[in-house]
Amino acid sequence: MATKEELAEFFEQDFPQANFIIERVGDRSATIRKKITHEHLRPGGTVSGPVLMEMADAALYVAILSEIGLVALAVTTNLNINFMRKPASDKDVIAECKLMKLGKLLAIGEVSLFSDGDPNPVAHAVGTYAIPPVKKFG
Amino acid sequence: MATKEELAEFFEQDFPQANFIIERVGDRSATIRKKITHEHLRPGGTVSGPVLMEMADAALYVAILSEIGLVALAVTTNLNINFMRKPASDKDVIAECKLMKLGKLLAIGEVSLFSDGDPNPVAHAVGTYAIPPVKKFG
Amino acid sequence: MATKEELAEFFEQDFPQANFIIERVGDRSATIRKKITHEHLRPGGTVSGPVLMEMADAALYVAILSEIGLVALAVTTNLNINFMRKPASDKDVIAECKLMKLGKLLAIGEVSLFSDGDPNPVAHAVGTYAIPPVKKFG
Amino acid sequence: MATKEELAEFFEQDFPQANFIIERVGDRSATIRKKITHEHLRPGGTVSGPVLMEMADAALYVAILSEIGLVALAVTTNLNINFMRKPASDKDVIAECKLMKLGKLLAIGEVSLFSDGDPNPVAHAVGTYAIPPVKKFG
Repeated sequence: MATKEELAEFFEQDFPQANFIIERVGDRSATIRKKITHEHLRPGGTVSGPVLMEMADAALYVAILSEIGLVALAVTTNLNINFMRKPASDKDVIAECKLMKLGKLLAIGEVSLFSDGDPNPVAHAVGTYAIPPVKKFG
Repeated sequence: MATKEELAEFFEQDFPQANFIIERVGDRSATIRKKITHEHLRPGGTVSGPVLMEMADAALYVAILSEIGLVALAVTTNLNINFMRKPASDKDVIAECKLMKLGKLLAIGEVSLFSDGDPNPVAHAVGTYAIPPVKKFG
Repeated sequence: MATKEELAEFFEQDFPQANFIIERVGDRSATIRKKITHEHLRPGGTVSGPVLMEMADAALYVAILSEIGLVALAVTTNLNINFMRKPASDKDVIAECKLMKLGKLLAIGEVSLFSDGDPNPVAHAVGTYAIPPVKKFG
Repeated sequence: MATKEELAEFFEQDFPQANFIIERVGDRSATIRKKITHEHLRPGGTVSGPVLMEMADAALYVAILSEIGLVALAVTTNLNINFMRKPASDKDVIAECKLMKLGKLLAIGEVSLFSDGDPNPVAHAVGTYAIPPVKKFG
């Protein structure tokens, strides 16, 4: 298990480019928030798809590490994302992840992504992480 | 239809952050290449998943625009990606897209992603773009 | 809009092989139930994957038709399913669908599948249906 | 490794309801064929989605077993399918699978589905199978 503060420090050190705020973790779920700036927009004034994909992937990672701790080197093996509505260009994006399975080798979760203040999701993702086996030392 | 040169100029103007090279377009397919630098890596010395997702999405977009021209504002509606092997940290990533369907409203394509020089794909994606209906004037 | 009874009659006539019970519809959601018999099992005594895929697809279809009525000829365009736990061979399978988007041209929903009595889902699917445009007659 | 004949016998015994013909296996790929009859059609005279999903899943399974042999109890963990064109109601459906990864724990492949005689795929799927670890006996 890892706390919000421990996770924030971990991501700041190891994934500085990700640049999001961990709002909440616990109970096999996590919520993260990202401030949208000009670099995240695409023509037409909407948040680019890859920014949403990155957030979905990060929310899954935060939810998993909050359960299994910071030591493991989990990696995404599959991500499926549906883009459903145009995100607002001037609102934070919020990603809410719920883990559906947390096994020894695989974790699967779903992520709903929102423009802050709008209850209709802009996108929804489902992803799988492979969890490396714990090495036991003698 | 758009040529490689027209597409390169379009992406440089409208998507400067994407930062990839269009190697080839035509025959409902496209190949793009991205130089991997420190900012694209994650701990463990491998290319981060979101970089691969962004390239898959971009390769689809290039292949579609090369067929329908630069005017349309196509948007991704679904992307599914499987990460299969660890990408090399010191090689370009190459994304090869083939369109499987190019309808009036939807285009669907698959993308194989490689570390330059290795024939085994590091990832494989399938994505759908919605193509906005052509506005007829006057 | 269509009621549970209208939907049941529609599926009995047009999709007799589907063979499920509609338990509940409404509020952009639907729950269906299927009795598992020997023909649905695979070696090892578990419900076969295609039975779960068929139920996910059907639950989506029921949820959509309950909203848009029985006239439209909606078709699946994408389905993504994760198999998470081994279903019980002697329990009904229950599929709960919630629509996440119900647009004029596309509907997107998620489906959780359960072995009756166990709160942990055996599978989870996300699917997209294309809704044919309404023909207007003179 | 398993031959076409060994696989055919295996499926006839263990999956009699699947009811397809194995046309070819080898080189990390497989082709299967299914005769379409009235029970596989849906209103509008087209092959139902679940029939295509079942064939995609089966083609993957045949390709994997042809490589690892008939002993292992592999199970699908993820399947993503895009439906692209309306299948013919009076033609066999053919599913061609190519494995993209065949690891010790996971196999990933893609499947193109065709109405016999038409080179444009009616659907395309990507799926993952979990391969159970080999038990070693003393």
